[in-house]
Amino acid sequence: MTEYDAIIVGAGVIGLSTAYHIKRQNRNLRILVVDKYSAAGQGSTAKSMSAFRCLFSSPINYILSDSSVDFYNHVQTKLGVDLKLFFIGYLWLLGEEDFAEMASILKELAAKSLKYREYEAEELAKLLGLNIRLGGDEEAELMGLKDVYKGIFIPKAGIIDADCIVKFYEEEFLRLGGEIHYGVKVQDLIVEACKPIGIVGEPFFWQEARVSGVKTDSGIVKAKKTILAAGAWIPQLLDGVGIECFIKPKKRQVFAVEAKNPLLRRLLFIKGFNSVGCLPFTILPKPRVLIRPFPTEGVFWLSYADDFPRAFKLEDDPQPEKNFYQYGIYQVLVKYFPQFKDCRPYSAFAGLYEINTLDGHPVIFEERDLIVVGGASGSGIMKADAIGRIAAALYNGDEYALLYGGRKFRVSDLSIKERRVEPEELQI
Amino acid sequence: MTEYDAIIVGAGVIGLSTAYHIKRQNRNLRILVVDKYSAAGQGSTAKSMSAFRCLFSSPINYILSDSSVDFYNHVQTKLGVDLKLFFIGYLWLLGEEDFAEMASILKELAAKSLKYREYEAEELAKLLGLNIRLGGDEEAELMGLKDVYKGIFIPKAGIIDADCIVKFYEEEFLRLGGEIHYGVKVQDLIVEACKPIGIVGEPFFWQEARVSGVKTDSGIVKAKKTILAAGAWIPQLLDGVGIECFIKPKKRQVFAVEAKNPLLRRLLFIKGFNSVGCLPFTILPKPRVLIRPFPTEGVFWLSYADDFPRAFKLEDDPQPEKNFYQYGIYQVLVKYFPQFKDCRPYSAFAGLYEINTLDGHPVIFEERDLIVVGGASGSGIMKADAIGRIAAALYNGDEYALLYGGRKFRVSDLSIKERRVEPEELQI
Repeated sequence: MTEYDAIIVGAGVIGLSTAYHIKRQNRNLRILVVDKYSAAGQGSTAKSMSAFRCLFSSPINYILSDSSVDFYNHVQTKLGVDLKLFFIGYLWLLGEEDFAEMASILKELAAKSLKYREYEAEELAKLLGLNIRLGGDEEAELMGLKDVYKGIFIPKAGIIDADCIVKFYEEEFLRLGGEIHYGVKVQDLIVEACKPIGIVGEPFFWQEARVSGVKTDSGIVKAKKTILAAGAWIPQLLDGVGIECFIKPKKRQVFAVEAKNPLLRRLLFIKGFNSVGCLPFTILPKPRVLIRPFPTEGVFWLSYADDFPRAFKLEDDPQPEKNFYQYGIYQVLVKYFPQFKDCRPYSAFAGLYEINTLDGHPVIFEERDLIVVGGASGSGIMKADAIGRIAAALYNGDEYALLYGGRKFRVSDLSIKERRVEPEELQI
Repeated sequence: MTEYDAIIVGAGVIGLSTAYHIKRQNRNLRILVVDKYSAAGQGSTAKSMSAFRCLFSSPINYILSDSSVDFYNHVQTKLGVDLKLFFIGYLWLLGEEDFAEMASILKELAAKSLKYREYEAEELAKLLGLNIRLGGDEEAELMGLKDVYKGIFIPKAGIIDADCIVKFYEEEFLRLGGEIHYGVKVQDLIVEACKPIGIVGEPFFWQEARVSGVKTDSGIVKAKKTILAAGAWIPQLLDGVGIECFIKPKKRQVFAVEAKNPLLRRLLFIKGFNSVGCLPFTILPKPRVLIRPFPTEGVFWLSYADDFPRAFKLEDDPQPEKNFYQYGIYQVLVKYFPQFKDCRPYSAFAGLYEINTLDGHPVIFEERDLIVVGGASGSGIMKADAIGRIAAALYNGDEYALLYGGRKFRVSDLSIKERRVEPEELQI
């Protein structure tokens, strides 16, 4: 049986970025990617809002995102691969308390050269037809909605096409001689004694043991290193061998509303924020309903990342819930943007976040020849390039990874045992 | 429908200690305990090795255990309730490297007045018929077994009867007017809006919500506070509402071997270590096979807490595995104690550890009227009294709990958000 140098489980954006960066640095090695779907990026990657920002409270999240976005921009502008990347910016609408919280974060980021612009609420009200005063509206008060106090616009942020990134990594990986087997579902990790003695039932607990590959629905695949990049499915596979990764799956839903009426079209194609001439990715005051414009389709994507009591639950085919839009997102949205009155989604989809419950950062660690790359917590696409480079550095046994743009990143900072990260305060 | 002041899920040693301490301080409140079994302590409590020690690397684990053991001793000697508690001591057999690790821990504990005695390997060899030199034994070398370098005997340690402790708490709780419903299985936590508005589908994400009770196989029970003390089953219930507790279940097995032959009887009833005149609870060098003497039954209990690749897995009725004894425990044991040659267990049982994967300490926290008390990581019985007092203090809204003996303990030290504990290095 062939023993691969590495098998990577998961051909989503994290798995393929990891595969590409490993192969790029190790051209002669046999690297195999397997995925249960019939093509790349068909799992949670396909269910993403495909947006990016460099605004995080944690310096590590900032670096991961900032360097990845720079790389994507390089791919599009210098390598000429269209990733449908548009710097439309993020517009963060804040209540008075939220703004106080955000102010210190922005100060720190400004020191790191992150540009942003502050908007007065009144200015945004005029520009966007935004309702900034909810006081006196009984319903809004019952819902706990806050007045808009300020807006923060971040230009280094925007939208991208997840599928284009995935295809880029896939093609580059294949071009370098990497192998991908689609339609292969990994069922279990295989564990073997490091020095087998040939007795049935090995490994016994007094033997050193390692992960030696995977059992799939089309047979066993052995590898020197097994790399788990299966997103929300990682913890299930790790539970099978008793390794903790602090990742939990949680459903996330996106609802698509067409900008049919003139008021909505005006909102979608608002001038003055960006060169595209469209609404920035917009975040409402708490609860943070999200508006992701899709100008090429004439559509808004609407979402909300609900916390309690949304279950940690692994589902093969998570479904969006009509009432989540109707009694949840819509009710909040229409208070701030009356333009959405009576709008119903024409389509919707749901995927799984792979939430790192320790601190909302990725986890990248190796144990017993098993490398885990996951926990991107809903910001995997915007960080995938950096994550792939760090995972490749771990595979190579390097202490530091070189991120795009030249920053050095200490690989163990995202491990479990020597983790050095501050909890992220701006998860959305 | 009655709304209880508190419902406690789980009538194991942690649940009943919590129930008792809450009720003791709040005699007029209606406190209900439910358990899926037909009597107290029938879950993992019944599958414990029922031993205790005050030797931990973490100061917090030391305090939890030390004060609980003092309380149990008080119950037995002052209140006259037989808990079958015997201070037979722990004998920790150490390889040279293990000893170096242990030395600094002992030094710290000595400063806290923990007594211990150091044994030379040769002395133990003579006393116990222990094989201290494995060098030259090919099998032992293949198995990675180390010579015994020293032994550490800790007198404040021993064995106890888990069932007796459980019955003590149960009786006291009932005497104070507490209620227990056995044979009631909790299926889900119930979540309600804090201020319901009467629309189907509540709570919506813009509403404040809380845990308002539990759904059981015999109906709904509502309570002002819901207290989860269901051991390894806690994470499953919490996953349902998306709350992380960092607890994972792992099977643990115990094998009972009769001291039939004269050599084994001599080992079991060895003089000189304790007033009972029996072998101390004995821990072999790594891998740490455990020998728990059961002198009143003429039996040894043998166990090993295996790590990788033992699955994190929830099972209703976990089973001991014959090969785990035969190719695992037995092979190690017989190298050090040849007296066990050809011994086969006459019975065996298995239960679930509720491992706290952050740091091996209990977790005690409140979120949205839900109190979680768990993660005792295999040392629940020896810490149950302190854990119950801390949980009761949390229930009462106190900043500090008063442990038996008068120590004050900051309740939030074992929370998730303000956790202040150092990882335990001496988990066995």
